[in-house]
Amino acid sequence: MTKLILGADHKGFKLKEKLKKVLDKQEIEYVDVGAKKLDPKDDYVDFAKKAAKHVQKGNYAVLICGSGIGMSIAANKHKGVYAALVKDAKEAKLSRQHNNSNVLCINNMPLAKAQKIVKAWVETPFSNEPRHKRRITKIKRIEK
Amino acid sequence: MTKLILGADHKGFKLKEKLKKVLDKQEIEYVDVGAKKLDPKDDYVDFAKKAAKHVQKGNYAVLICGSGIGMSIAANKHKGVYAALVKDAKEAKLSRQHNNSNVLCINNMPLAKAQKIVKAWVETPFSNEPRHKRRITKIKRIEK
Repeated sequence: MTKLILGADHKGFKLKEKLKKVLDKQEIEYVDVGAKKLDPKDDYVDFAKKAAKHVQKGNYAVLICGSGIGMSIAANKHKGVYAALVKDAKEAKLSRQHNNSNVLCINNMPLAKAQKIVKAWVETPFSNEPRHKRRITKIKRIEK
Repeated sequence: MTKLILGADHKGFKLKEKLKKVLDKQEIEYVDVGAKKLDPKDDYVDFAKKAAKHVQKGNYAVLICGSGIGMSIAANKHKGVYAALVKDAKEAKLSRQHNNSNVLCINNMPLAKAQKIVKAWVETPFSNEPRHKRRITKIKRIEK
C-alpha cells in the first residue's frame, strides 16, 4: 500500500500540524518527515529531499511552504518526483489526471481550503490518456 | 545581455502571441521557442526543453501552458533551471527575491494579468539574503 507523506518548513508547519489532526480523526495513515518543530531557520529543501526519498519508492507527498514555490522547485529536482504546485481543488485534480503528479505542493492557506485540495488530489486517478502518457514519457527522458 | 525567452504549448499559444505584441510595442527583445503555430497535438515538454537550453546559458524564460503545472515540472527537470509557477504579481516578485527563479510559469490567463506578472518578475532582483542563498545552494546540490 502506498503511503501519504507530509512535509513542511516553518511557513507551512502550522498547516501541516492541522492537517495531521484531520487525518488522525479520519484514521488515515501518514508519515511526517518534518519540520518536527517550528524553527524559523529551517530550509524547505531539507523536507522536500526527505519526502522525495519516500516518493521515489512509490509513495505520495504533500509539501507546504510559504508560497509553495520553493518546495515545488526542490521536489522536482529529484528523479521520479513530479510535483504540482496548485491553488485549488480543480488544479489538484488536473495535476493527477494530466500530470500524474506524485507530490502536491501548496502554499500556507486556511485549513478548510487545504483539506479540499488534498482530498481532490488523493481521490483523483491518472487519466491514462495517450497524450498525457506521451508528455510524461518525454519528461522522464529529460531525467535520464 | 541576457535574453527573454518565450515558450508555450497550444493552451498558452494565444497568450504568448499577445505578449509578443506587447513586447514589440515596448521594443523589448525576446526569443520565441514556439509553438510557432496552434497545434492541439503539441507537447508542453518540447517547449520547456527548448527554453531550458537558453536558460542554462544565463537567460530567462516565460513558459505558458493550460495550468502552468506541466511546464513547471518539465522546466525544473533541467539542471540550472529554477521554474516558479505563479498566480499573481506578488508571487512573481517573491519567486525572484527568494528563489532567484529564472523561469516564470503561468497558466492561460487574461493578457492584462499576465502582463502585470511578467513585469513584476522581470523587474525584481534576487534579494541575495544569506537564508535564500543557503536554500538555493541546497537545491543545486540535489542537481549534482
